[in-house]
Amino acid sequence: MFLRTIVNNAKRFAPNIRAMSSQGGPLVDLTVDNDGVAILTMQRPPVNSLNLDLLKEISKSLDEVAKNKSKGLILTSSSPTVFSAGLDIMEMYKPDLKRAEEFWTTLQDVWFKLFGSNFVTAAAINGHAPAGGCLLSMSCEYRVMVSGKFTIGLNETALGVVASTCFMDTMFHTIPMREAEYALTTARMFTVDEALKVRLIDETATDKADAISKCKDFIEKFDNIPPLARSITKQKIRQGPIERHQQNRKADLDEFLSYLKHPKVQQTLEMYIQILKMKSSKK
Amino acid sequence: MFLRTIVNNAKRFAPNIRAMSSQGGPLVDLTVDNDGVAILTMQRPPVNSLNLDLLKEISKSLDEVAKNKSKGLILTSSSPTVFSAGLDIMEMYKPDLKRAEEFWTTLQDVWFKLFGSNFVTAAAINGHAPAGGCLLSMSCEYRVMVSGKFTIGLNETALGVVASTCFMDTMFHTIPMREAEYALTTARMFTVDEALKVRLIDETATDKADAISKCKDFIEKFDNIPPLARSITKQKIRQGPIERHQQNRKADLDEFLSYLKHPKVQQTLEMYIQILKMKSSKK
Amino acid sequence: MFLRTIVNNAKRFAPNIRAMSSQGGPLVDLTVDNDGVAILTMQRPPVNSLNLDLLKEISKSLDEVAKNKSKGLILTSSSPTVFSAGLDIMEMYKPDLKRAEEFWTTLQDVWFKLFGSNFVTAAAINGHAPAGGCLLSMSCEYRVMVSGKFTIGLNETALGVVASTCFMDTMFHTIPMREAEYALTTARMFTVDEALKVRLIDETATDKADAISKCKDFIEKFDNIPPLARSITKQKIRQGPIERHQQNRKADLDEFLSYLKHPKVQQTLEMYIQILKMKSSKK
Repeated sequence: MFLRTIVNNAKRFAPNIRAMSSQGGPLVDLTVDNDGVAILTMQRPPVNSLNLDLLKEISKSLDEVAKNKSKGLILTSSSPTVFSAGLDIMEMYKPDLKRAEEFWTTLQDVWFKLFGSNFVTAAAINGHAPAGGCLLSMSCEYRVMVSGKFTIGLNETALGVVASTCFMDTMFHTIPMREAEYALTTARMFTVDEALKVRLIDETATDKADAISKCKDFIEKFDNIPPLARSITKQKIRQGPIERHQQNRKADLDEFLSYLKHPKVQQTLEMYIQILKMKSSKK
Repeated sequence: MFLRTIVNNAKRFAPNIRAMSSQGGPLVDLTVDNDGVAILTMQRPPVNSLNLDLLKEISKSLDEVAKNKSKGLILTSSSPTVFSAGLDIMEMYKPDLKRAEEFWTTLQDVWFKLFGSNFVTAAAINGHAPAGGCLLSMSCEYRVMVSGKFTIGLNETALGVVASTCFMDTMFHTIPMREAEYALTTARMFTVDEALKVRLIDETATDKADAISKCKDFIEKFDNIPPLARSITKQKIRQGPIERHQQNRKADLDEFLSYLKHPKVQQTLEMYIQILKMKSSKK
Repeated sequence: MFLRTIVNNAKRFAPNIRAMSSQGGPLVDLTVDNDGVAILTMQRPPVNSLNLDLLKEISKSLDEVAKNKSKGLILTSSSPTVFSAGLDIMEMYKPDLKRAEEFWTTLQDVWFKLFGSNFVTAAAINGHAPAGGCLLSMSCEYRVMVSGKFTIGLNETALGVVASTCFMDTMFHTIPMREAEYALTTARMFTVDEALKVRLIDETATDKADAISKCKDFIEKFDNIPPLARSITKQKIRQGPIERHQQNRKADLDEFLSYLKHPKVQQTLEMYIQILKMKSSKK
């Protein structure tokens, strides 16, 4: 029965996960356009699973944007169907604990740098955004999602996982508590229209170019706002969650590591990986 | 003038309170249906006033559901018109302080067990749900209310009472702060449609059977969600109010007891009881 | 480029600021009508800029209303187009530090007295309400705004200013976090319809008389509510922000004073004042 649950969830929530490994090449692309807007494209095929390497590249890119004083950052994906499938479970399966610790710490870094950035951030969500993919987009200040059959949400419970407090707090910062509780417990994946209705996203777009263009419109709203006042204001607003998680970093890491050591968790991950492999080999 | 207020409130807010005492028989009915869903029916005629005995039975039932590992719990009422009229004021009028302390402590227990339960909870609200009745339903994870002339809300101020912080926090957890402040100060009783609009309830139903069926649909959404991940997630989300009230239990009790000792409070309760008796004898 | 920003903002956000100084006469009018409702009218032409003197008068009036046990307070403006333009920047430009300290402390007092008042409060917003004007109205329990081309919002960032935490918290208490973050960072001035949609205001009115009448309707909702229960309930609901800012008073003052000492801030204020003077002389 529990096995069937996992199988069903793998089918329902990972429809686009076709392969387990990357195909080489740089994991992110960071360009600054003529108007001074940085565009950070995740490009770890097939589904931008967030492994240690991709997270490190994102983290480095965020430092660069902060240093280069870009007008703002747009986060997007090179995949036509997936923004990011979330954390790479291969980082959690039979983990080297030293690497697992670095993995989680880097994820924390990415969240602090993105959620608390002094530059303007927007996500051009051009595909599915479950779990960690949803987190990355929610950590931005604005979300434009491409209309279509894509879905977005924190669906961790469906995979037998409990989202980190930082994932939850980022959702509470974005949508009403009542919506968030319902979504988090039921592993709700919002359609684009549903996401718009509860303001999990701010706008829809016809395609990736349109999404990026609307993100730019948002960023350019700040052309008339003195940047220092804007960034201090943003950081004051986000101070609550940021301080709470700075104090909680160690506990959050320990929780993750002890979770990995659970035999039941490893068993679940193993089943899940088998299913993904089967799906992958069928195609 | 103050007397008139109380009279008017008694008329407006207690339209279904016809008798002051129970008519014997078990105060709750707890059954588990074929699908493993527990149904807890409050049955203290005429209006499920929450006295010490009823609260004790609810508390015991919640323990049983937790132990029997039911799939989930549906809370409902045997009355055709009242879900629960809230706290029984006879527990507050000329109280034995020992019993008053047990009364309040048991109410606190019920809230902790219901709001923080590890099993799924839903309320089939098949009648009026003022004050404590509203609290019980808000402590569940999902609310379905039977359409009709029923109303729901925390109307304590209308009776000259201040809702306990725990009542307030449960409302803040459910509807937006702006709605909650307006409702709490004005003693607002929401119609079914109004309650749906602000998401104080999640769905409407045509009758009690329909309400229970829709609660079951909600509970069965979790058939595909690993239960441990779901329950830890729920408890993490509700951790804030739970911790706050664990620390506040003693102060909250003291506040209640000192409130009971106020001559003005006793005087108000006496008037209120006279009015209810007059209403009762007229019918 | 930064200069152009300031010029544009001065044009956009201060369209009704025609003169820099007051024209004599009492700065507020406080009357109690036949139904026992106090009406506090700000009357510092042309735009009710909140300088030390006006804030002191508001503070004194709030004390009086508390003492006289009025049924409630309606806050409004004598100007036909501006509720209040917010803090008077002349109090910040080349300030006498002793006076600046008194200015900020008085602003804090006004907020505590208004936000935490034991009497019912409503704002009849009969004109533009940017920045501090928006704060005053949000500190009330109910807001009725006259329909028309008026706007309301915390637009501090547009002027290169960071709103005090107390301004932000008052907004978080009123509208959803997502709306508040967007509004605060982009310096959003809501139209009347937009404000109604996010519940930044509660009702619209055709003119000032209608706004005052609707505020009275709100206040008279409490005729049937025992006043002590109502006021304790209100203060419990608002306890969180109130306690936070009581603890933060000194830090908040220091932040304001150190902000004033920044050469860049003084330079910005000087430019801003030049622009206002130019606008003023053209008319």
